[in-house]
Amino acid sequence: MAEEKKTNYDVVVIGAGPGGMTAAMYASRANLSVLMLDRGIYGGNLNNTAEIENYTGFKSVKGPDLAQQMYEGATQFGADYAYGTVEKVELVGDEKHLTTDMGDTFVAKAVVIATGSDQRKLAVPGEAEFSGRGVSYCAVCDGAFFKGKNLIVVGGGDSAVEEGGYLTQLANKVTVLVRRDKLRAQPIEQEKAFKNPKLEFVYNTSVTEIVGDDTKVTGVKTVNNVTGETGEMAADGVFIYVGNVPMTAPFKGLGILDDKGWVKTDDKMATAVPGIFAVGDVRDTVLRQVATAVGDGAIAGQQVYKYLDSQK
Amino acid sequence: MAEEKKTNYDVVVIGAGPGGMTAAMYASRANLSVLMLDRGIYGGNLNNTAEIENYTGFKSVKGPDLAQQMYEGATQFGADYAYGTVEKVELVGDEKHLTTDMGDTFVAKAVVIATGSDQRKLAVPGEAEFSGRGVSYCAVCDGAFFKGKNLIVVGGGDSAVEEGGYLTQLANKVTVLVRRDKLRAQPIEQEKAFKNPKLEFVYNTSVTEIVGDDTKVTGVKTVNNVTGETGEMAADGVFIYVGNVPMTAPFKGLGILDDKGWVKTDDKMATAVPGIFAVGDVRDTVLRQVATAVGDGAIAGQQVYKYLDSQK
Repeated sequence: MAEEKKTNYDVVVIGAGPGGMTAAMYASRANLSVLMLDRGIYGGNLNNTAEIENYTGFKSVKGPDLAQQMYEGATQFGADYAYGTVEKVELVGDEKHLTTDMGDTFVAKAVVIATGSDQRKLAVPGEAEFSGRGVSYCAVCDGAFFKGKNLIVVGGGDSAVEEGGYLTQLANKVTVLVRRDKLRAQPIEQEKAFKNPKLEFVYNTSVTEIVGDDTKVTGVKTVNNVTGETGEMAADGVFIYVGNVPMTAPFKGLGILDDKGWVKTDDKMATAVPGIFAVGDVRDTVLRQVATAVGDGAIAGQQVYKYLDSQK
Repeated sequence: MAEEKKTNYDVVVIGAGPGGMTAAMYASRANLSVLMLDRGIYGGNLNNTAEIENYTGFKSVKGPDLAQQMYEGATQFGADYAYGTVEKVELVGDEKHLTTDMGDTFVAKAVVIATGSDQRKLAVPGEAEFSGRGVSYCAVCDGAFFKGKNLIVVGGGDSAVEEGGYLTQLANKVTVLVRRDKLRAQPIEQEKAFKNPKLEFVYNTSVTEIVGDDTKVTGVKTVNNVTGETGEMAADGVFIYVGNVPMTAPFKGLGILDDKGWVKTDDKMATAVPGIFAVGDVRDTVLRQVATAVGDGAIAGQQVYKYLDSQK
């Protein structure tokens, strides 16, 4: 007779990135039964990150290596791990019932949402190929790799303008390519940006391809959206800020999202639903980094214990 | 001619524990000039921690080793480090003037307070000797090392009772030694504790010595504060919860502390004084861990950049 699959847990953590793995570690270290569910391999966005030099404790580490080390630590106290995309979360009394695309149903006393977010892609040739080799979606993560270099930022909203400004601290020059004839960023951000001598704006311009040599980005191909004129611009790096989307579709009915879809929490990582917590990039938060996700995860893992203790 | 000592910085970080080092890394990685000031060796309380198995990315690591690795990462972008206990912080226009016990004065545009907290000690023989070898001040940090063991908790306040309850998830039995004839903990916490079959309370009892063999704690010597009777109790570990004190004396005049002396911040780690931030254990926060300090540090390091950028 086959061993019956365990389906009831104290805590199910949805998403096994740095935040989810940390929550799972803290909860299992407090002797709770814990399942991490992920739609793919553990590690989340670490798996798309070539080199990380701003996670404290590591001078420099490859993303997938850090993911592996985090996983070994996170599971050493008995947390389980399973594949599956959560499609639905139902509240049944105090219980949370989770259904996945694998046809599984799990029952949990508490849930930690750690599904993260996805950077919207340009979807042009070369983007995927040079991701982590000159193409980046995070100035705070990767800007320091481009000291004294020439960079292109793609986008016209707050993120493009603010992160463009951040990059001028490091780069020689930053050119922002804006699809429309003006910026969407807040006026105060625009005003500051226009005074920055290292920041240049080029309007009505879309990127059609990211080009490079054998190892890294060398520039972009562009088209003028008004005249149709094509062109090419040299650059050592391309930072893409055309949108960041929270992975929260299955949680829409729970009343825990803000109007942009991010999960709202208090400083204990608690959402509006008792027993449902959220950590990391999926939160409505001020900074999305490995370090902040890990900090959130520790708090949520401990708060899950306190929540279950208070139910006794 | 001797090289002149640098005294003006964009940011001075006071305290070089995990939170302070992370703030220094993020700020220096954004090309700000950064000084970390510490009253001793970098690493903070890591230096008193034998083994850490709940900092994500490390399955298990010695505290001083982690401190060294964090320091190497934190200083790789040019952050300076100097000895000195900050005795005074004065606000001079937008500048912050810091005076140390070494007679130095540093001028900073922004300050990050990362001075941490100190566990109040019992000040009995054996306490220092067995610290990290059975004597602990943090159940969430060290409880998992005592699965199935018998533990003593010393204290009668909220922390002693709550952390005693936490330890019963892991230990075989937890005995709480209370100096007075009753607990100071909140009634609701007491009520829950009295229902916990693994938690026992012994009143009017002080610890006079912590005893052990060559390698670890074996028990405590006690005295009854009413009868004067002495005794001895066996235990595999002793968790001491007689008070946790924020290291905030130099900041009393700034109007940024709560009534217990912890630094109040918002979710951007900003205090009530523009340009002064705080991270880690010194904050009025829900959990004090390496992971949470590091998360705080990332936010503060980035917010320092945003603050200075807004001053331009």
